[in-house]
Amino acid sequence: MMEKGTYSYKIEPRDVDFTLRASLVSMCDYILQAAGDDADNNNFGVRDLNCEGCSWVLLRMGVEIFRRLEQYEEFTVRTWVNDVNRMMTTRNMVVCDSRGETVAAAITQWAIIDIEKRRAVDVTARADFSHVVRNEPSPIAVPLRIFAFEPETTQMRTVVYSDIDFNRHVGSVKYVGWMYDMLPEEIVMYKEIARFDINFIHEARLGQVLRIGMSNGDSSMFEICSGNGQPVCRAVMSWKESGLK
Amino acid sequence: MMEKGTYSYKIEPRDVDFTLRASLVSMCDYILQAAGDDADNNNFGVRDLNCEGCSWVLLRMGVEIFRRLEQYEEFTVRTWVNDVNRMMTTRNMVVCDSRGETVAAAITQWAIIDIEKRRAVDVTARADFSHVVRNEPSPIAVPLRIFAFEPETTQMRTVVYSDIDFNRHVGSVKYVGWMYDMLPEEIVMYKEIARFDINFIHEARLGQVLRIGMSNGDSSMFEICSGNGQPVCRAVMSWKESGLK
Repeated sequence: MMEKGTYSYKIEPRDVDFTLRASLVSMCDYILQAAGDDADNNNFGVRDLNCEGCSWVLLRMGVEIFRRLEQYEEFTVRTWVNDVNRMMTTRNMVVCDSRGETVAAAITQWAIIDIEKRRAVDVTARADFSHVVRNEPSPIAVPLRIFAFEPETTQMRTVVYSDIDFNRHVGSVKYVGWMYDMLPEEIVMYKEIARFDINFIHEARLGQVLRIGMSNGDSSMFEICSGNGQPVCRAVMSWKESGLK
Repeated sequence: MMEKGTYSYKIEPRDVDFTLRASLVSMCDYILQAAGDDADNNNFGVRDLNCEGCSWVLLRMGVEIFRRLEQYEEFTVRTWVNDVNRMMTTRNMVVCDSRGETVAAAITQWAIIDIEKRRAVDVTARADFSHVVRNEPSPIAVPLRIFAFEPETTQMRTVVYSDIDFNRHVGSVKYVGWMYDMLPEEIVMYKEIARFDINFIHEARLGQVLRIGMSNGDSSMFEICSGNGQPVCRAVMSWKESGLK
């Protein structure tokens, strides 16, 4: 059983919003960066898979934010894999501030795709991941499986250059930003994110026109679809009172 | 005379585009991050100015890219101030790869504003910056002063939550991304950025509707205006052939 990987980062000015605290998008960025750094250190990172014509893709993610980090705060992300099967691996993250307090936690599920065929391959056939599996439970509940719903408001969006990542599709975290930017002011100003769940269903590529649908109740639901109605991803944001702004 | 500050960074997966090389936006991010890190280390960073109700704002920037860094490449940004007057300071950057080759260079001009009044204040009155001025010439030509022009194509854009930075206005680098995303495919696919100049004229705030105008010739010109036609910023991108994609 390997030791958990621990990675240190700092909240830079580009990571904060107008409250001078890390945005949900930047926390997702660091969580995924830690996943990439740890996979690299264990020789099954994107670079290693690329050599075999494969890449990691994120299927589902759940993130809980207990306290939003402030600008210039240093923090660590501890990450470990606790499940591997043919379909996917489960990777966990615990984010701690410099006093060792847990400020966020995440659970992510990943598949391996064949880059040319854009199709999932057997994770266990790529390599023997069993030696990296750590028998420690996930810090938060598994990512929600999110079903279709009838959105109250919709917005159209064309996929542009800066949306596209190294996998030549819209980067996972881009969707998070689009969703957050659609929220009404009364949520952005007076609520804090408690938990965020997202399911990635189909890829979106450069130039595609997408429809972002949203419904706000106790939580905010999102569905992004392509022109023919095919779902690209769905997400739920659960709120708590902020009392801050 | 102080030693130049040198800051080390790495091109992360979130910094690259579909060519697996650092985007112009991410290079601007790192260049400005080095500026912030160096100002902090010299006790005249945003945090220090905030204590006096002030903040740095970027007026103009010129960036030349000689080679686009690849994903995971480590690099350094050396930065120094070589001019301070009542209106602004001039800060330079040289970006080197791990072999010590210069891959990019930048020149930036900064003013100090009173946060409440949103008005420029005398830079030299804030503190004695003279001890940080290094008598070493800028690595590239001063930022172009860019004049109004009649754009060929325009696009409207509403300022959303994630556009807003710690200064409570649209972050400098956001504009760069918006402009790049408007470029026609024949430029994005077959040209490389050689030089980028940008002038910041007025702030843009949350909810404002902006018009982005563009004209493409030997170089690409951009002007972003608010609803009443007041210019927010103007930029020029100069191209070289890529031969890469």
